Amino acid sequence: MGNSFGRIFRISTFGESHGLGLGVIIEGCPAGLPIDEDFIREEMQRRKPGQSKITTQRKEEDEFQILSGVFEGKSTGTPIGLVIMNTDQKSKDYSHIADKFRPSHADFTYFEKYGVRDYRGGGRSSARETAARVAAGAIAKLFLRHYGITVQAFVSQVGDLKLGKSYQELDLAKTEDNIVRCPDSETADRMIELIDQVRKDRDTIGGIVSCVVKGTPVGLGEPVFDRLHADLGKAMLSINAVKGFEYGSGFEGVKMRGSQHNDAFYQEGDRVRTRSNHSGGIQGGISNGEDIYFNVAFKPVATIMQDQESVNESGESVVVSGKGRHDPCVVPRAVPIVEAMAALVLADHLLISRTNKL
Amino acid sequence: MGNSFGRIFRISTFGESHGLGLGVIIEGCPAGLPIDEDFIREEMQRRKPGQSKITTQRKEEDEFQILSGVFEGKSTGTPIGLVIMNTDQKSKDYSHIADKFRPSHADFTYFEKYGVRDYRGGGRSSARETAARVAAGAIAKLFLRHYGITVQAFVSQVGDLKLGKSYQELDLAKTEDNIVRCPDSETADRMIELIDQVRKDRDTIGGIVSCVVKGTPVGLGEPVFDRLHADLGKAMLSINAVKGFEYGSGFEGVKMRGSQHNDAFYQEGDRVRTRSNHSGGIQGGISNGEDIYFNVAFKPVATIMQDQESVNESGESVVVSGKGRHDPCVVPRAVPIVEAMAALVLADHLLISRTNKL
Amino acid sequence: MGNSFGRIFRISTFGESHGLGLGVIIEGCPAGLPIDEDFIREEMQRRKPGQSKITTQRKEEDEFQILSGVFEGKSTGTPIGLVIMNTDQKSKDYSHIADKFRPSHADFTYFEKYGVRDYRGGGRSSARETAARVAAGAIAKLFLRHYGITVQAFVSQVGDLKLGKSYQELDLAKTEDNIVRCPDSETADRMIELIDQVRKDRDTIGGIVSCVVKGTPVGLGEPVFDRLHADLGKAMLSINAVKGFEYGSGFEGVKMRGSQHNDAFYQEGDRVRTRSNHSGGIQGGISNGEDIYFNVAFKPVATIMQDQESVNESGESVVVSGKGRHDPCVVPRAVPIVEAMAALVLADHLLISRTNKL
Amino acid sequence: MGNSFGRIFRISTFGESHGLGLGVIIEGCPAGLPIDEDFIREEMQRRKPGQSKITTQRKEEDEFQILSGVFEGKSTGTPIGLVIMNTDQKSKDYSHIADKFRPSHADFTYFEKYGVRDYRGGGRSSARETAARVAAGAIAKLFLRHYGITVQAFVSQVGDLKLGKSYQELDLAKTEDNIVRCPDSETADRMIELIDQVRKDRDTIGGIVSCVVKGTPVGLGEPVFDRLHADLGKAMLSINAVKGFEYGSGFEGVKMRGSQHNDAFYQEGDRVRTRSNHSGGIQGGISNGEDIYFNVAFKPVATIMQDQESVNESGESVVVSGKGRHDPCVVPRAVPIVEAMAALVLADHLLISRTNKL
Repeated sequence: MGNSFGRIFRISTFGESHGLGLGVIIEGCPAGLPIDEDFIREEMQRRKPGQSKITTQRKEEDEFQILSGVFEGKSTGTPIGLVIMNTDQKSKDYSHIADKFRPSHADFTYFEKYGVRDYRGGGRSSARETAARVAAGAIAKLFLRHYGITVQAFVSQVGDLKLGKSYQELDLAKTEDNIVRCPDSETADRMIELIDQVRKDRDTIGGIVSCVVKGTPVGLGEPVFDRLHADLGKAMLSINAVKGFEYGSGFEGVKMRGSQHNDAFYQEGDRVRTRSNHSGGIQGGISNGEDIYFNVAFKPVATIMQDQESVNESGESVVVSGKGRHDPCVVPRAVPIVEAMAALVLADHLLISRTNKL
Repeated sequence: MGNSFGRIFRISTFGESHGLGLGVIIEGCPAGLPIDEDFIREEMQRRKPGQSKITTQRKEEDEFQILSGVFEGKSTGTPIGLVIMNTDQKSKDYSHIADKFRPSHADFTYFEKYGVRDYRGGGRSSARETAARVAAGAIAKLFLRHYGITVQAFVSQVGDLKLGKSYQELDLAKTEDNIVRCPDSETADRMIELIDQVRKDRDTIGGIVSCVVKGTPVGLGEPVFDRLHADLGKAMLSINAVKGFEYGSGFEGVKMRGSQHNDAFYQEGDRVRTRSNHSGGIQGGISNGEDIYFNVAFKPVATIMQDQESVNESGESVVVSGKGRHDPCVVPRAVPIVEAMAALVLADHLLISRTNKL
Repeated sequence: MGNSFGRIFRISTFGESHGLGLGVIIEGCPAGLPIDEDFIREEMQRRKPGQSKITTQRKEEDEFQILSGVFEGKSTGTPIGLVIMNTDQKSKDYSHIADKFRPSHADFTYFEKYGVRDYRGGGRSSARETAARVAAGAIAKLFLRHYGITVQAFVSQVGDLKLGKSYQELDLAKTEDNIVRCPDSETADRMIELIDQVRKDRDTIGGIVSCVVKGTPVGLGEPVFDRLHADLGKAMLSINAVKGFEYGSGFEGVKMRGSQHNDAFYQEGDRVRTRSNHSGGIQGGISNGEDIYFNVAFKPVATIMQDQESVNESGESVVVSGKGRHDPCVVPRAVPIVEAMAALVLADHLLISRTNKL
Repeated sequence: MGNSFGRIFRISTFGESHGLGLGVIIEGCPAGLPIDEDFIREEMQRRKPGQSKITTQRKEEDEFQILSGVFEGKSTGTPIGLVIMNTDQKSKDYSHIADKFRPSHADFTYFEKYGVRDYRGGGRSSARETAARVAAGAIAKLFLRHYGITVQAFVSQVGDLKLGKSYQELDLAKTEDNIVRCPDSETADRMIELIDQVRKDRDTIGGIVSCVVKGTPVGLGEPVFDRLHADLGKAMLSINAVKGFEYGSGFEGVKMRGSQHNDAFYQEGDRVRTRSNHSGGIQGGISNGEDIYFNVAFKPVATIMQDQESVNESGESVVVSGKGRHDPCVVPRAVPIVEAMAALVLADHLLISRTNKL
């Protein structure tokens, strides 16, 4: 269980870090949508390793093939099968960790759960799995774009370095202008400097990705368990290294009084709007047409270039030494993953909402 | 969609605040479990309104009936149908808000989504719906108890008043000793005072509920989308008024370095353990046998005893005036709801994990 | 698992024959549908025991209450909770079969599966469970009627007494004119006579219910597993005592050649139609706009008024003696159940089909 | 929707007849199962075209690759991604049917449903999709074999040529001894002759595949909707060209009296057994340990080498002429498909049944 996400617009992923390949089936994409493969490729470039000096220097080409569901450039309504072959899956030597449990990785839990594990590069628990999500999310974005909905994420915190501006004060179009994906260039520079220092320290650091969804119609989200923000939260918490999710006023909102927090309604043209937006665009689990915004907390990457205490499969004390090329901070590359998962949630709810009324 | 939760141990709820009644079907509870109705009743008492001076003074008796699935005191494996009748559903007058949208309530979004809404007491969006969850959660708790798993929540913050101790420093058994459900009596007193002041101000305030799960076996949680913490997050975010979820090191963890954050493994008897627990008992989405702990942020209750700007169904400006008896702060009554949802997630994953190996 | 049916228009049932009550949650009924309680009542009358001399003389009143999801006579989009209390659940003595396995009943399999069973009246395996289905199906019928779709079933065979006419040769409006629900009055008389003879012989007999769905739009049914006829088949096979399902040309069709069996297309006004309808209104699993028709085979009722060889829970040889008031033939009362399940499948697919195109 | 089957042991398929490739994700296969690729290959050989003179002479190599979920020859518990590339997908000319609706094919319904269709070789509605099912079913068979459960299908009727023996009177091991897959050599010869004649007539003919499952433990099948036979029925009805399903006494059983039909229980060693098996190994939807057996009706293949009346996408009258190499009768190649789908249903229920008791 657990390899599918969504109900109507639904993805199922498969694949390990160092198997032959990975992929995704995208089901429920309505027929007639132009599938822009270049756009999918661009999105995957944003996620892929080796894109800058503050990401891992590992090379993965992430070439994909669409095997089905698209005919003459358009979706046909049948499942879109997309495959990404692992080109260099045999090149590495994993014998140094084959029977050891890397601290704060999923080695131990997978081994206990299944009695066996593919130890090469983390196997199924590798962040490589998110390549399939980004590909599927790109198609969801194309679908949302058709209805004027956009999803934009950016890095708002690295370590204790906070952006310190609300998204309304920022020009989100500048997000891609720097390698850390923070739309404020000055903060971006400091974040890059911090990550670079952490890398030199052979260490890693955490961060926060923020995301804004604009153009959502009123009415997405299903009471009572499949509230829009509950599905967004689950989507984000399913991304590797995520430790927290908050939307609208979030954890800060608990300090407020109702009289401050409530979002007064007013009429603007033919539209009901709210004066403030502590609700984060979602009320009672259903979108109200205002911007949806949320934050996603990422812990520091578990693989560090230092010796660490651990045990092996036999229960003996061992030292685990970091090796290879890893990200000192995951948030720059997490930006497109957060967007992809958000797009998938919205695409799904957009389709579900077609069934609400007679 | 959206009225069911879980896959094997699965609940489906129905019911509005002021309809004839509400209820829940609990599916997948294994056969042979003694169903202790007194325990269910106690759990519902913890949630029900009118239990103290800092909760709403509204009276709801929450008497339930189990209609099926239990025979001679034990679960039979067939669905447990449980109904809670609304005893005074006709007594109130809702004409003052029948066509108005209360700020930061779900009135507007429900109306737009469905073209119709049951405006009495919030209808389906009322927190009354959580009575069914608590009843179902009590049965999940009985199931977990059979395997030595306990779920314990408590209030750790009200407004900006923080408990300031980790759960290990507290005696969680004292949680029920005071009406705010904070296990530290001194902090509890200050919280109660604060809530009482807010109430007198005809206002409301937010807070945080923390939760600890002990005794979980290794191996619960399904990669990659149904990670244990992703399901816990969705469960919590599906509770009324919740704005955020974090587990383990959470949002604070983003500031840490990997070398601080990583939880070193060591062997203790026949068990692999971790020296620290920033992972919050979950690694790669799968329980590792350490305590699971998480925080849930609740916004201030939307209903305040003050006049607020709004619009009505015709788009005209109106004033909405708070009326009736409402909670000045939701967290004391949210404690059993958080526990119930956590218990449901764990019960479900406990059953799913039976299918992992040959 | 297994107590829910459908994906969007979805029902979940609970309840045993002799517990406090049974019921159903109907999820996904779009908002704004007038819910005609009298119609639901009429449908339940068609199913209920004691309605004629050829059905069981047992009395069940089948009074239902709608607890939620309907406001001012219309569906609100939230789950419709419907409860049917068992009024005389304590009146009977089941000690004579409490530890015996009745031949061709579910006593043995339930006991082995769950290690416990509610032996009173068959518990969850009782046909009484279908009362909830008929109630839910009535709401599905109201939904379909809104779109001009009708579902009509009738008895086409009892024992080896076949109706011998196709549904096109019959006036289906006459189905309710006689107690066996066969629209041909002459055949109906012979069927009634046969069932009455079987009853006098303290025996039971099987039969076939046929069903016709008219007015279906083109495009219902999801390739490849959720073909419309596959879902209809599963729905029918989930009814107690059903042993077979065929649609269109069915089992007879295997004898035909393709040149006979193929349904030639032609244009009629703005509609594409087929000259013959061996396809039974479904091609490639998707409705083509022609009438959908199918047959459902029911075995003879297992409870007979005769002594039968069996074993008890301890594995000892015992004699099981029929007692009480049971149906000598199930098909007359199965007619509304077949219709209900067919209506549920169509309502579900009608909603799903809204998501097929941009 | 509709491209997944199963709940725990769950498959999701994708792919069109003439796209780049097709494939399947197999989820929920427990960890530790040896995955014998040769066995998968053998099963696919049984399904593939061009295997004998009575099947289509079309060549498809059906080479598959397992991309994930298997490590060092064993399942790891993670999803098994399996891909079959279409090697000659561009070689054919489909312009003669590109805008025509072939009678009794899915061309018209797909076009109306989606507004677009991949007309090459039937696209998603092609029987080629079943290659993915057979591959997945082979893995399900390996899983079942681990628990001593076997699934064996055979051809029992072609046109009006019936085998005329019950499966107990046959040596099912002889099924693969002839090209029509009928275990009675004399009948097989006559069936082959008939199919060959039909082929020479440029026509097609239907048939019946029967299937027997041995070694099933007591307790598989979930009341009330997911009865074991209801899931088997849906599985079979989801196969191309299937028009009917019956199990145990089936349609013939309706003619019987309860006193004949009931299966008396008796004790044999430590096992409860039944003297007859009209129940077909399933009572109340749950397996009782006896052999499960059922029949599946296949209509004559729709593609015939004759001119047929039809319309095109513009509603104009056209003649559709059969072309290419097609099966005159589908049942010989349907045998492994029926087995595959049955194996998938049983594997799923075997895993679900682990959750029934404490």
